[in-house]
Amino acid sequence: MDYVVAVDVGGTTFKGGFVARDGTILHFERRATPRGADQVIAAVSAFVADLARPRAGRRPLAVGLAVPGLVTPTHAVYSAAFGWRDVPVSSFADVDVPVALGHDVRSAGEAELAYGAGGDDVLFLPIGTGIAGAVVLSGSLYGGAGGFAGQIGHIPVRPDGLACGCGQRGCLAAYASGGAIAARYGSGTAADVARLAAEGDERAAEVWSSAVDTLALALATYTLLLDPARIIIGGGVSLAGDALLVPLRERLAGRLAFRRAPEVVASSLGVRAGLLGAGLLGWRSVS
Amino acid sequence: MDYVVAVDVGGTTFKGGFVARDGTILHFERRATPRGADQVIAAVSAFVADLARPRAGRRPLAVGLAVPGLVTPTHAVYSAAFGWRDVPVSSFADVDVPVALGHDVRSAGEAELAYGAGGDDVLFLPIGTGIAGAVVLSGSLYGGAGGFAGQIGHIPVRPDGLACGCGQRGCLAAYASGGAIAARYGSGTAADVARLAAEGDERAAEVWSSAVDTLALALATYTLLLDPARIIIGGGVSLAGDALLVPLRERLAGRLAFRRAPEVVASSLGVRAGLLGAGLLGWRSVS
Repeated sequence: MDYVVAVDVGGTTFKGGFVARDGTILHFERRATPRGADQVIAAVSAFVADLARPRAGRRPLAVGLAVPGLVTPTHAVYSAAFGWRDVPVSSFADVDVPVALGHDVRSAGEAELAYGAGGDDVLFLPIGTGIAGAVVLSGSLYGGAGGFAGQIGHIPVRPDGLACGCGQRGCLAAYASGGAIAARYGSGTAADVARLAAEGDERAAEVWSSAVDTLALALATYTLLLDPARIIIGGGVSLAGDALLVPLRERLAGRLAFRRAPEVVASSLGVRAGLLGAGLLGWRSVS
Repeated sequence: MDYVVAVDVGGTTFKGGFVARDGTILHFERRATPRGADQVIAAVSAFVADLARPRAGRRPLAVGLAVPGLVTPTHAVYSAAFGWRDVPVSSFADVDVPVALGHDVRSAGEAELAYGAGGDDVLFLPIGTGIAGAVVLSGSLYGGAGGFAGQIGHIPVRPDGLACGCGQRGCLAAYASGGAIAARYGSGTAADVARLAAEGDERAAEVWSSAVDTLALALATYTLLLDPARIIIGGGVSLAGDALLVPLRERLAGRLAFRRAPEVVASSLGVRAGLLGAGLLGWRSVS
């Protein structure tokens, strides 16, 4: 079966694999993300080289590469998380098949539209180490005047609140990202904090509740501005399932006095959305 | 010259007049808004009847009527400000020319696109007695899944802040609408408060500064979500000019750490945007 190599350059792990044209994942593996921009670039390059090697006489048709931050088709322009600037696509992938570079969250949003719950007026919100959103309006991803739309992770939800790594104050991501949840609790991952909260750990419950409250505020704002039919939460934090969704729906409704809340669901693709999005990038480069 | 009757049913005054096809205002008058839903409906009906009367042998081609709240082409479904529900267009205008009903802010946004500063990715934000926004994306007004997009006046900017008339807490409108500015100061209009603040009245300066701060937060959120090229402030409060725009631009930029602020300008149409929007409604019904 024809396939493309897909690599989703993520926060704590890279996800890589082979994706068929219909979205079937033929191979899936993770590698730990190293520290340092140069180290990350080298690790991506090695990962791509490994995956692009011929196997059983077959070679991939293309490579799709999804990275965070500000991205053009030729360069990873800037990422706060990785600290790189203006990295050409050839530094990530030195292979002799077409390589398509794209934005991780936007690609994951495209995958959600193509293979997941989808919809015409939708916010796709993967919550992983950081938070960004794919704003789907009338069935298409909306980029804004300069391509920078969807920065919901950095809207000032709590104006006098916590300092955020981005330099602003009170950002959604400073409360509700996987990274912030883990850091505020002091150990483990966001999933650990959700589990400990359910088991009665008071500090974990506080951190989790603060994350859910802040997320509900951000979603109330999004709802009032853009009237979505559905909000699809993805990424690692969405794996908390009902521990996230049940209180989130309740608090979102509680913040809306004169209109109904949109449907809030977990992505059916889970953490695979990023890989499938990278796969779509690859397939588009050959079709 | 052919003309339509335009009536913009506003907060403290109605604006009515005659509008030519090219947007020339041939006649303009205001009437004080009475209190009570039935009184408002009767006053609109009388205003329309007066304006629709033949003058010098000429009759209007149509009537365009812009009202706040939730509106369909046949009914004013709901307005919190006026307290009406399901008012048929015939109750507002019993005349023998076509009558076109529309939403005040959306119509004013259309007028801004047609006759004013315009642009492809723009927020048009009239600040009068209340606040709503016309969300212009890729050159078109965006309504959302159910037509309720643009409720920026009621996003929860200060989560633990002032109670708002809408039943929520911390809404932009509770700080920055003309009605809220006047009520918080305790006398006069928003324009009076701006003037008193400039003259050194400490309480006026506090109220004004709080309005500008809260508006800057809401615009930072809008900018991060939707990356507009331009924000156009209209309505009565925009007449404060630099007393509004200069601190607003500065505080908006101060809330954005990793991206530039969009251009923030006052509507070139001023309070005429609503009348011109109503005029557009009328012209569209005959063309």
